[in-house]
Amino acid sequence: MKPSIPKGMRDFSPAETLRRRYIFDTIKKVFELHGFMPIETPTMENLSTLLGKYGDEGDKLLFKVLNSGDFLSSLSTEDIQEGNSNKSALKISEKGLRYDLTVPFARYVVQHQSEITFPFKRYQIQPVWRADRPQKGRYREFYQCDVDVVGSNSLLNEVELVQIVAEVFAELGIFVVLKMNNRKILYGIAETIGHLDKMTDITVAIDKLEKIGLDAVKEELKEKGLDDTAISALQPILELSGTNDDKIASLRRVLAESPTGLLGVDEVETILGYCKSLGVAIDLELDLSLARGLNYYTGAIFEVKAKDYAIGSICGGGRYDDLTGIFGMKGVSGVGISFGADRIYDVLLNLDLFPKDQVEATSKVLFINFGGEDELVSLELMKKLRFSGVSCEIYPDAAKMKKQMDYANQTERESRVASVKQMETGQQWSVAFDVLDSIFEENFDKQ
Amino acid sequence: MKPSIPKGMRDFSPAETLRRRYIFDTIKKVFELHGFMPIETPTMENLSTLLGKYGDEGDKLLFKVLNSGDFLSSLSTEDIQEGNSNKSALKISEKGLRYDLTVPFARYVVQHQSEITFPFKRYQIQPVWRADRPQKGRYREFYQCDVDVVGSNSLLNEVELVQIVAEVFAELGIFVVLKMNNRKILYGIAETIGHLDKMTDITVAIDKLEKIGLDAVKEELKEKGLDDTAISALQPILELSGTNDDKIASLRRVLAESPTGLLGVDEVETILGYCKSLGVAIDLELDLSLARGLNYYTGAIFEVKAKDYAIGSICGGGRYDDLTGIFGMKGVSGVGISFGADRIYDVLLNLDLFPKDQVEATSKVLFINFGGEDELVSLELMKKLRFSGVSCEIYPDAAKMKKQMDYANQTERESRVASVKQMETGQQWSVAFDVLDSIFEENFDKQ
Repeated sequence: MKPSIPKGMRDFSPAETLRRRYIFDTIKKVFELHGFMPIETPTMENLSTLLGKYGDEGDKLLFKVLNSGDFLSSLSTEDIQEGNSNKSALKISEKGLRYDLTVPFARYVVQHQSEITFPFKRYQIQPVWRADRPQKGRYREFYQCDVDVVGSNSLLNEVELVQIVAEVFAELGIFVVLKMNNRKILYGIAETIGHLDKMTDITVAIDKLEKIGLDAVKEELKEKGLDDTAISALQPILELSGTNDDKIASLRRVLAESPTGLLGVDEVETILGYCKSLGVAIDLELDLSLARGLNYYTGAIFEVKAKDYAIGSICGGGRYDDLTGIFGMKGVSGVGISFGADRIYDVLLNLDLFPKDQVEATSKVLFINFGGEDELVSLELMKKLRFSGVSCEIYPDAAKMKKQMDYANQTERESRVASVKQMETGQQWSVAFDVLDSIFEENFDKQ
Repeated sequence: MKPSIPKGMRDFSPAETLRRRYIFDTIKKVFELHGFMPIETPTMENLSTLLGKYGDEGDKLLFKVLNSGDFLSSLSTEDIQEGNSNKSALKISEKGLRYDLTVPFARYVVQHQSEITFPFKRYQIQPVWRADRPQKGRYREFYQCDVDVVGSNSLLNEVELVQIVAEVFAELGIFVVLKMNNRKILYGIAETIGHLDKMTDITVAIDKLEKIGLDAVKEELKEKGLDDTAISALQPILELSGTNDDKIASLRRVLAESPTGLLGVDEVETILGYCKSLGVAIDLELDLSLARGLNYYTGAIFEVKAKDYAIGSICGGGRYDDLTGIFGMKGVSGVGISFGADRIYDVLLNLDLFPKDQVEATSKVLFINFGGEDELVSLELMKKLRFSGVSCEIYPDAAKMKKQMDYANQTERESRVASVKQMETGQQWSVAFDVLDSIFEENFDKQ
């Protein structure tokens, strides 16, 4: 029987591992150019840290680790008869696998607050685990690339995140649109039409505008209990279109009576203004239908989509005002975004955007092994090549091609000249041993 | 209540994360210069893959993951009454966390054999988990850095591993001694004194020579059932000393009647010979007391110790003849070594060998935020700096130092000159905006 791995898990071949590393390295480079520092948290957290942070559904999707030793003594026959797995799980399991990077980060900030100088600019690139039903593009182990600033209310942080998004995707060669919204605007809309109670319903409805059209949205709002006055008050929002400036202008009119709403518009305008002055090269689009994690975010909301490949959001985030409150540290505002490495991988692969030199075999040169003296000669040349930073290897067993190549190689050895063949092009040179390293640097390194 | 992490687990601060990355990057660089390719395997393996591979003790130390959903239905009240946790664990848990990188690698090779061209030179740097009792220097989550060649019997692979060890520790600046032995020699010794049955006992005894001395070792051998003839036959081995050549010479005499033993001596001599011709810069010591994982290795055995810091083995490995046999793929010989990142970290830290530029804050320049127009000016300068590869950041909130600095900064803005202070030295310059980036490249980059 052939061995296998659990469903939803993946092996990564050398080619896949190198491609993934290219993504992580590109993201890291940009994060660090902006002064963000990496941290790492353990794979296992106490279940008390994780439970209740992701909703009932999330709790179900947590991978729980069985307590070592005689865990069974914590279970009674009554537990078996009762048959409540969720309840019994907590008797035999104290630890769970990281479900995302946000909760561990909050836990980290609270636990290490005395060592941290705020604002704390951190990034974290680590795998997370979810017992989701696996399907195309959804795995039970996948990486998240989070970058956050906590302890600062300045909108400069939002601007910096926009810059980071622009720089990362420019480096990767992916054309994207960054959709932006602000939770205060959504609040203002609900407030203006006198339905703060229906904020979620309204957002959900607006979100469907593109798919189901204006009338259907109105219908849905009616079903949700909005009267005609409210709905017609909402009309200008639903029909909002044009440039960001157009949208901002009409929002100012519509939200004139909502201080919170206007504040949200100010924030959007400020962020867009900075990005314009700085010439941040990215399509920024104010999109009121954007409402990801509504109850979590309190200000800016971001979402990034690839223009040339439909795969949903490849990056997203926003401003939250109380990340660490869940662990008793109040009033620490933060803003962050998360890059979806797996989806970015799919985009790069399908658009053939992986740079060849980054993701090809690490070894640039293979030495044929003719055994005997030649072996040692090759090893000496390889030492020289590696010293010049050229990756190389020798076929470790001489036997196979010895006979047929004996002559050619003998002449080479005597003339201190190696015949070099570039496998991809078939191109072949005779190269003096002494300049071999420079040759490879020139012809192979920058491929 | 302050949040915490499970015992034996660690958070890594930015400084620690950067130091660790320096170690991993150095090791990777050397691996890849030798043409090794990275692979990654999932955190969770099927327990059927892991169980029985690490002995009973190992099975106990495996972290088992609770099955999702209604696992309780797989447990009966009888299971509770029987109270056999090990047995019951398998009814409610199908997956376990990676315990080392060797078994997953073997599983990978068998599962993907059709895609792999042999010899397969792979490296793997990933964390592993063991439910060991935590203590100083022993954690429940730690990284292994394995490099292996499978599918080749050539001793060139052993030579290459010695080169890799030499190059990695030279890069890291750690002076090491590489102790080498060969399992065939140990076999030959046991064979020569007519006690193949006592091979392990003999090895264990020899291993204690330094600690307890010759007589005590003889005493122990006698207890283990060796008669005086056998012990006196062993005497030359126990007293073996001098250079590697001396040792090899006397071994040839002592093992004259053991073909296997002599083959082992040949292998050692060949490896040492290649290393000498290639001028591999490392202390190589033939050490018969070296017998790590005796029953696992079949040829060369390696172990590396730091000369200037006592912490035990920081790297080790050897030749094994049947890695994949456990998964039904017979006769695939391999050789590999594993670097102990945590111990290497301790050595570098205690000997103060971490290069400052590698492990300091990622941000080289901090811009004071004077708010208003200056903020935008700073942001533009920062954009320029980052374009030149200089990492920088601005304090996101203006308020604090606005007043007192207003004047100074105003003049700066007008004169398009920034006053720059290097915090470590206190040194201060006035720098024209236009050349700011080059200045930082010169003064900060190569620190």
